[in-house]
Amino acid sequence: MEKTIIKPGTLLAPVPCVMVAAQGKSEALAKPNIITIAWAGQVNSQPPMLSISVQKIRHTYGQLLEAEGFSVNLAGQNLLPKMDLCGVKSGRDIDKFSECGLTTAYGSVLPDVPYIAESPLSLCCRTVSRQPLGSHDLFLAEIVEILADNSLLDADGALHLERAKLVSFAHGQYFALGDILGFFGYSVASPEVLARRMPEK
Amino acid sequence: MEKTIIKPGTLLAPVPCVMVAAQGKSEALAKPNIITIAWAGQVNSQPPMLSISVQKIRHTYGQLLEAEGFSVNLAGQNLLPKMDLCGVKSGRDIDKFSECGLTTAYGSVLPDVPYIAESPLSLCCRTVSRQPLGSHDLFLAEIVEILADNSLLDADGALHLERAKLVSFAHGQYFALGDILGFFGYSVASPEVLARRMPEK
Repeated sequence: MEKTIIKPGTLLAPVPCVMVAAQGKSEALAKPNIITIAWAGQVNSQPPMLSISVQKIRHTYGQLLEAEGFSVNLAGQNLLPKMDLCGVKSGRDIDKFSECGLTTAYGSVLPDVPYIAESPLSLCCRTVSRQPLGSHDLFLAEIVEILADNSLLDADGALHLERAKLVSFAHGQYFALGDILGFFGYSVASPEVLARRMPEK
Repeated sequence: MEKTIIKPGTLLAPVPCVMVAAQGKSEALAKPNIITIAWAGQVNSQPPMLSISVQKIRHTYGQLLEAEGFSVNLAGQNLLPKMDLCGVKSGRDIDKFSECGLTTAYGSVLPDVPYIAESPLSLCCRTVSRQPLGSHDLFLAEIVEILADNSLLDADGALHLERAKLVSFAHGQYFALGDILGFFGYSVASPEVLARRMPEK
């Protein structure tokens, strides 16, 4: 447990890696666009809320200022090359939906907020607030509609998010989610619950 | 791409799973304590800032109100049983440091903020603001000191966070981080850079 003090930096890890879709209202910003974001987090349970942080220089930033909200689209490994591209290219220069062969779709609660049809799980969010923090502005938003790909649902309608093969991000690298190590509360669960929920252990 | 609308909930995933350590100033809250948190996120790069969300009912909440800050301690798979326990037990009932056999340590920038010596990477944070959102309060904090276990550093002092075997959280389950799938920007990298950074591909 010998320690070295290293320079303060953005080393919270692992963090989500998601594709945020948005469109503005003015002509210059109306085209649906995608930005890849790792500075995102769940911030509240009731109501369900999340945060994303976006730099002012990004094309999406202006769209977020005009829009009622945005969608957070989770991405599996199969979408990773497109997700990476959407993090390094600008919507000022290319149409990321068409460039990546992705499909714009719209939910019913926020009919002007695009989501990505190819995403396994899309969280449509209504923006609640915006706070400048320095390099980034923090957008807080309420999750008002969730669209799940049917392949993630079993016959009883239960969600199996592990089927999405989500990608995690840590210190500049993308990681696959590997083995399930346990469920919340497993350390104090009864033998009966453990046998039911973690039969392999 | 057939979709089903599911109930809005906290389905951003994968999210971090970290052990937050704090202590208050009053006698009742002075004992160092740990809370496990998945509602955490990176929110800013310059200065480096993160967020954690905590329910008012939690013992740690009162400590955070009194303290100058807190530490965010990343956890590898070897710490998972302890991390899970710190998420379901209350510091009102048990001393989580002693119960889990964990060691309190202190940095130099925030000498009254405890961190967990067994954590591979501890981010010591100064609280900047607190916002009630509903079920949770959102704490924004600046990362002011980072303590890395020497085992994560190579001879040149470069950080190898993949050695920490970090744990991710998604929809109530803990996941191991698996294979490295790429680095930020790999989709547009030159063949030379790809050969250097992803020689196995």
